[in-house]
Parts: sequence; C-alpha cells; structure tokens
Amino acid sequence: MHLRDLIDLVDLRPSELTDILRFAGEISQNPSYYRGSCQHKIMATLFYEPSTRTKMSFQAAMLRLGGKLIGFDDPGNTSVKKGESLKDTVRVTSNYADVLVIRSPWEGAALAASFYTRCPVINAGDGGHLHPTQTLTDLTTLNYTVGRLENLTVGLCGDNKNGRTVHSLVRTLSRYKNNRFVLISTPQLTLPQYLQDEITANGCIVEFSESLEDALPTLDVLYMTRIQKERFASPEEYERQKGVFVLDAAKLAIAKPGLRILHPLPRVDEITVDVDEDSRAAYFAQTEYGLYARMALIQRITEHSDRCVTKTLASTHDAQCLNPRCITQNEVYLPHLFYETAAGLVCRYCDHGV
Amino acid sequence: MHLRDLIDLVDLRPSELTDILRFAGEISQNPSYYRGSCQHKIMATLFYEPSTRTKMSFQAAMLRLGGKLIGFDDPGNTSVKKGESLKDTVRVTSNYADVLVIRSPWEGAALAASFYTRCPVINAGDGGHLHPTQTLTDLTTLNYTVGRLENLTVGLCGDNKNGRTVHSLVRTLSRYKNNRFVLISTPQLTLPQYLQDEITANGCIVEFSESLEDALPTLDVLYMTRIQKERFASPEEYERQKGVFVLDAAKLAIAKPGLRILHPLPRVDEITVDVDEDSRAAYFAQTEYGLYARMALIQRITEHSDRCVTKTLASTHDAQCLNPRCITQNEVYLPHLFYETAAGLVCRYCDHGV
Amino acid sequence: MHLRDLIDLVDLRPSELTDILRFAGEISQNPSYYRGSCQHKIMATLFYEPSTRTKMSFQAAMLRLGGKLIGFDDPGNTSVKKGESLKDTVRVTSNYADVLVIRSPWEGAALAASFYTRCPVINAGDGGHLHPTQTLTDLTTLNYTVGRLENLTVGLCGDNKNGRTVHSLVRTLSRYKNNRFVLISTPQLTLPQYLQDEITANGCIVEFSESLEDALPTLDVLYMTRIQKERFASPEEYERQKGVFVLDAAKLAIAKPGLRILHPLPRVDEITVDVDEDSRAAYFAQTEYGLYARMALIQRITEHSDRCVTKTLASTHDAQCLNPRCITQNEVYLPHLFYETAAGLVCRYCDHGV
Repeated sequence: MHLRDLIDLVDLRPSELTDILRFAGEISQNPSYYRGSCQHKIMATLFYEPSTRTKMSFQAAMLRLGGKLIGFDDPGNTSVKKGESLKDTVRVTSNYADVLVIRSPWEGAALAASFYTRCPVINAGDGGHLHPTQTLTDLTTLNYTVGRLENLTVGLCGDNKNGRTVHSLVRTLSRYKNNRFVLISTPQLTLPQYLQDEITANGCIVEFSESLEDALPTLDVLYMTRIQKERFASPEEYERQKGVFVLDAAKLAIAKPGLRILHPLPRVDEITVDVDEDSRAAYFAQTEYGLYARMALIQRITEHSDRCVTKTLASTHDAQCLNPRCITQNEVYLPHLFYETAAGLVCRYCDHGV
Repeated sequence: MHLRDLIDLVDLRPSELTDILRFAGEISQNPSYYRGSCQHKIMATLFYEPSTRTKMSFQAAMLRLGGKLIGFDDPGNTSVKKGESLKDTVRVTSNYADVLVIRSPWEGAALAASFYTRCPVINAGDGGHLHPTQTLTDLTTLNYTVGRLENLTVGLCGDNKNGRTVHSLVRTLSRYKNNRFVLISTPQLTLPQYLQDEITANGCIVEFSESLEDALPTLDVLYMTRIQKERFASPEEYERQKGVFVLDAAKLAIAKPGLRILHPLPRVDEITVDVDEDSRAAYFAQTEYGLYARMALIQRITEHSDRCVTKTLASTHDAQCLNPRCITQNEVYLPHLFYETAAGLVCRYCDHGV
Repeated sequence: MHLRDLIDLVDLRPSELTDILRFAGEISQNPSYYRGSCQHKIMATLFYEPSTRTKMSFQAAMLRLGGKLIGFDDPGNTSVKKGESLKDTVRVTSNYADVLVIRSPWEGAALAASFYTRCPVINAGDGGHLHPTQTLTDLTTLNYTVGRLENLTVGLCGDNKNGRTVHSLVRTLSRYKNNRFVLISTPQLTLPQYLQDEITANGCIVEFSESLEDALPTLDVLYMTRIQKERFASPEEYERQKGVFVLDAAKLAIAKPGLRILHPLPRVDEITVDVDEDSRAAYFAQTEYGLYARMALIQRITEHSDRCVTKTLASTHDAQCLNPRCITQNEVYLPHLFYETAAGLVCRYCDHGV
C-alpha cells in the first residue's frame, strides 16, 4: 500500500515518516539526481487563503522534481466566489492535476477535499488546525542539523498555547525516546493540558520556564515562535513582558555550542538580526530542509500514477460539530464523521469535541 | 491552410471541427503520447476578468502538451491600468508567446486582438458574447459519452435566454442531422427567437416545456444551467418556481438509462449533490473532456511555428456600433467592421445589429 | 570573475556590457539554440509592486532558456504583510531559486537584497531610481536596428526630468563616442543639470528644443516618453502644450528614412496609432529585443552554478540617508553605506546626497 494523502502527520505510519526523513536527506545530498522524478506531473496549489511562503516552497519542490504547476491563490478570483462547493472545485481540479495542495482557513478542509478527488491531497494548512509539512520540515531540520530526534532537550519559546506548529512538533517528537520539553512562556500562553498529558503519556518529560535566559543553557534545540501582541493579558503586560521572550546575541552567550535555533518563519522581532550570523541559527537552513522534505513527500505521494477512485462516505453519527471554524459548517453535504474518545465524540474534520 | 485563431466556433470549417473532436478523443485514449507536442512553446493567458476555472483548464492543457505559461489575470496589475490599449498589450505579449488566450468582459475583444498579434489568438470568453472552447468541451463530451452528435433529443434547462453556452451549443448542434431541442424554462427565460429560427432553418425541431419532470423521460441529453435569482420576474416568482428547474435524484428515476447530464459548471444548487453518484451525471467527466478538447485545439493552432504577419484592416462602413459592451466603444482605433444581413448591418465584433 | 548581480547598469564593466549586447544578438538570430541553457534552474520574481509587462518579459526570457518560475506579485499576499523584513524574504527565497528578480517601490531595494541572498539578484526597477534591464533593452534595440551605439543624434522627447529610463540611457550612451543628445521638452521637464554635465564631461554634445517638429529632421533615434498631465505647470499649460510633444504620421514626413523610434511602453497618446505601421517605428520590436537582452543577462548571471556566500557588510559612515523613498528608511538593520563625492556623502542605496 502506498501513501495516498497527507492530511495529518499522525496519519503516517512510523515507517513512512522514517522513509520520508531519510529520503529528504538523500535528496539534500544530491538534489539534481531527482530532477526528473515528477516529470510530466502537475501539482495544483489551491490556496483559499494567501500564504506565499508555503506556496513558493511547494512550487519550488515540485519544479525541482521536474513537475509543473497550476493553481489559484485568491478565492475572489475563483468559482468559489460564484458559490461553488469545495467538493466541486477539488473534483474538477483533480481532473487537471496529479496532486492537490490545499490551504484553507477552514479546519478539516483538506480532509474533506480528499473524499472527492481523483488524485492525492496534501494539507498545506487548514486554519489553526494542522500544518503537517511544517512539522515535516522541522523534523528534517533536526534530523540533519542536530543529528537525532531522541535524547533531546527542546525549548519551546513564545506562544505555546495557540501555535499550531508547536503542537504538531511536540506531539510527533514526544513519540521518540527520552525527549525533554521546556515550555518557555507566560502562564497564559503555555501548552494546552491535553498535549502536556500526551507528552508524559509517551514517556517524555515536561518542564516549565518563564525566562528564556534561565532555560537556554540546558537546551539542545530552541524552537521560537511569535507572540502576537493581542495574546498578552493587557498592553501593560505586553510592554513588561515582551523582551523576556526575545532571543538576541547577548542571551545566546550562555547557550550550548551545539544548540540549534529553529523558527517556522516569518519572524517579526522575537529573534534579533544579530543572531542570524551565529552558526547555531538554523532557521534559514530550515527553509532549505523544508524544500527537501516537500520534495520527498511529493515524490512518494505521486509515484503511483494510477488515479484513485473517489469513494463516498456515510455519516458515522447523527451529531453535528459545533466548532464555528469547522469545514462542516460551510459545506453542508459533507458526511458527519466522529470518533469516540474517553471524553466523548470528537469531530474527525477538526478534532473538536462535540 | 491551417487554423490561425479560434474566435467563434462557427469560424471552423466542418472538417476542422470534426478533426478537433476526433483528435481530442485520440488524446483521451493516450494522453502521454502527446506530452511533448508543444515543447518549447509558450501560452500567454491574458485574463482581463478573472475566471480561474477556464484559466486552469487552458493551463493544464498546455502543460500536458509540454508547453509553458505566462500571463496575467488581474487587470489592476497590468499596463492596462496605465491606459494602454488592447492593441499594444496583445502586440507586445505576442512577442513573448506562441499563442494568446484572451478573456475579456468586452464583446469582440478576442477578434479585435487577433488583428494585431504575431501569433494565434484563442477566445476564452468575451463578455456575454462567445465562449467557443466551452462549446468544444460540450461537443467532445457528447461525442464520447453519448457516442453521436445527431439523432439526439437534447433538453436545455435553466436560463436559455441569457446563457451564452446554451446559445452556442444549440447553434452548433442544430447543424447535425435530426436533433430535437426541448427548451425547459419559464416563458421569460426561453431561447431568443432568432436562435429558434436558426434551429428550424437547419431542419431540427424545437419543443417547449415548463417542467423538467415532464420533459425528462424523452431526453438523451440534459444540459443544465444556472438561473440567477434576479432573472425571475419577482422574488415571489423565484420562490414559487425555483424547485421546478432543479435536478435531483428523485426526478432522475424516470429518465432514460442512457441519459447524459451536462453542466458548464460551476453549479450552485440547480443539480443536487445526490445526482453526482448517478452514472448518468457527466458534468465532472465533461471537465476532463474539456481538457482533451483544449489540448487538441492548442496543438492544432500552434503546430505551424511560422509567426503570422500582422495585417491592417480598413473599416467596411461608416457606421458605429451602439452596443455599450462592444469592444469598439473602448478601443477607438479599431476599424469599423460590419456585415450585411436581411435585418440590416451587424457589427462583426459583437454581432449586434446597428 | 563572473557577473554576480545586476543592480545598476554602470556596475557592468564595458567588456561585460559588450558581451551581453553581442550575446543578445546571437540569441535573436537563433533563439531555439539556447532553449536548454537554463534547464533545471528556477527564477523567483519578487514583485513588491505590480509591473506585469516587466514580469512577463523576464518570465518569457527564463522560459525560452528552459528555466522555471516561482514568485509573487502582490505584497498583500506575502509574509511581508506579516511584517517580515526584506532580508528574511530574500534569504529564504534564495534557498528556493537560482536567481531573484526584484521589483520594489523602495529605492535601493535590489542592492539591499543582494547582501543577503545565496543567488544572484537582478534589479527589475527600484522606485524612481534604476531600471537597468530597460536600458539594456534600449541599447540592444539600437545596436541591432540602427546598427551602432556611437555617432548618433538621439532625440529625447517627453519628460526628461523625471524619466528614469531616459536618465539611464543618456548616462550609458554618453560613454560611446560622438553622440549628440537633443533634449525635446518644456524647460520645466528638461534633463537634470548633473546629467547634462555628465554628457559633456564624457565628450558628447547636448542641445535643446521645445518643438518635436523642429528637432525631427536631424535625428537618427527618437526616444519618446510619456508626460504625465500633472507634470505641466498648470492645466492651461497642459492644454496648450500637449500636442507639441506628440508624434504622429504627419510630423514623421520630415524625418530621416533611417530614423528609429523607441518608447519604453506602455504609451498612452504620445505616439498616435498611425505611426505604428511606419517602418521607422521600433517600439514593438524593442520589446522583442528586450526578451533577447534579458535572455542573455539571465544566462550569463546563472551560468556559474556555485551558490554565492552571503557576506555581512559594516556601515561605512555614521550618517543616515534622509531620502524618504530610500530602502534604509524601512529596513533599519541595513548597514549605512555611503560614497564620497565632491558634493559630499552620497547614499550607496539610492544615490541621494546627505
């Protein structure tokens, strides 16, 4: 069986994830060897909200594999404006392309799309829900700049509450052995409890710090994210706190020589420019590893040229997801799909409890 | 002599149309055989109004022939904004490309463009006037899903008065032998009289129905189009009538097993989603046939690599077209071109009588 | 040593400029010979302000060399909107591409970008400051339509005060022997004094005319530019003067048979359409020579595939450029770079004196 879609990184079996990380490394060693791997294939980038960086990374990856590109990135210019459903749009564009890359503000949009396409779907971000290729990028970067995915002390500094890339990275890394996570943020912006529980359930360790400076000396990895001003309790709180979670060259003096600093980018001012020249800064290299990770993924996902058959799913429950950002709110024909957990029914599209 | 431009489908000689339909079928059987047919050639998509679906179909067609793409789809980002004439824009872009695909809100824009380019022009829609590649798509779909273009009973349901794709399909199909057209709409939205006359002059039959349900059992083909709410006589009329022209699985129960349902897409709610799984629904396959039809057209139109020489035309009459949506209203340097009919002079750009 | 970036045409050594002009001519003779020259290479077009014409010319050039394209042309859709610095954007995109083509409203943006990229940068226009590939286009056109770059009488008609393409052309052409420049404009819109001084310092001749008709008979080359209405002293002045600087077929009657008329395009009404058919009109051919010039430049700039190393520059002076359109106003991390002239310090980004 081969990889059909990439909606959520946890859908990958460990062997598939290992294969992609290994293959990304192979590509990075000899990218020109793979420049015909997707010859004659077309990627459609369906961007229902703009994200130039993500789009360019996917496009460069496909082009470096010898593939071709179509797509849109402005819903105002599409049939969507005329009231077309997601189903019809992806059904039609999957007649034109060999793989669809979907970005949407609606949670669960990529999963919903995958029910109706005749070609594989890659999730390039569905609202605040998932962004699996960013996590693939992060893992590839760690694997090749630190050299391992286990026995790591990983600092997570910034907005750990709302950061979708942080959540996904933590979930995935906690499956590797003996990792320790240092959560560096204000108490208001710490990691959600269910993710802390998942880390410890996986046998990894969670620690807390309210000071980047205090936490730095022990870290192997520092994953920085932006804190939006409006996430602080008050403007006064913002003014008082903002410097605490900014990384600059001075703070770095006390860090390990082998530290690697990652950031999903774009940054605003949470890392000062004087850090850029430090050999421990890995955030620009990270974008290059992102290219190789996406090349590996695209090659694997398109290597079987047989068109997939569209299947129709039936609703699993009578329930209705109440998350206002869930794709099912907007696309009423979608089957109602839920899975059961100890806490009750959870929507399969957006992972919100009912 | 070879095909230079495709402005209006009626410009094609019957043998050329037959050739393109045949060639589209050949491509559909073995698309990869043609993947180098337009190697080293460039298509410029000049979209003066957005139409992502049409643009992606053309782009995928060119890419699948091995060609390359440039273009714009936002007049606000072009030299047009700085006051440049259509003439200059197409003259310059025809220096960059091997074929221009033009979409414009102005009627006659593609014809006007074809006077000034050094490469062929394809009309991808000029206002409410013509959209020949949609009709080419429809004919290809009928040819390969029904198996013939004659001896058909074709239901046309929706807005037959304003639907440009309906008009073009009817004109072309009425040239084939023994076709019967059942016009299914409110009296206000029926086919214009001159088209009804053309059908009967061509020896085909016109019938009328105000109920989709009544008409369905006899149909070989049902061509559905959207009725915009504001086309109804009043909001009350809309509420009373809207369901009458909606196709759903229940109504389909009485239709022939060999019926094929077409729709130019995007649909809104004139076909319910429960029809999608019915084997008689051909509207998604139609978009794939559209790809093959455009591949066939592009290959034929670009196969002679000698650049065409621009010719200057003189006005044929002193008259001025009064249609406010005619390209001559906006581009004053254009020669005034008219042809004579029994009803008087008709503008060659927009086909409006003076 | 090979060509790394093209920021300003004066950065090119005479031998490099000669090589590119010669190579552009070679390409024009046999374009298909070069269609694999940039195979497997990617150009990123980073357009911080829209310029469809320039973008399409670069894109067609890259495609005709066998290369591929990524990019953006709407800053609203980019990470820029989220507050990302130019440095970060170009650093990241240079991981995806083999050459960056940058267009920006900020003067000095392309130079600033070139400090942080891992691949060459081409300036496609930085505000009102420089547009070197337009001048390369103009020189190529003269070289192959007039046959020489020296011993020319060159009329410059229109807005010689503000026209960036006029300034650049004059500076470059005045380095060739025995050229005479006839400045045709109102006194208010004449060429800045420092450029007149540069022409005479280079041993060329400057003359003045307030009438296109008077100047025409002696010209070998007429370079037309648009005068924006608001550049005139008053609306009355505009009405009185506008026709004086318009070229039409009647005025051309007295011009030399070997005259060549250039225009950077788009034109509005400063050249009437009846001139288009005159064999002396070279402005459409000019866009084709622009394609060959850009092909030559791109081939030369990308032929060494070794990635360049990013260098960090230190500020040369404590001064701060005060030009409100200078890139240093917006990107505060940039080193302060100045060069010394007789008139004092001059900003290396925007060439404004402090």
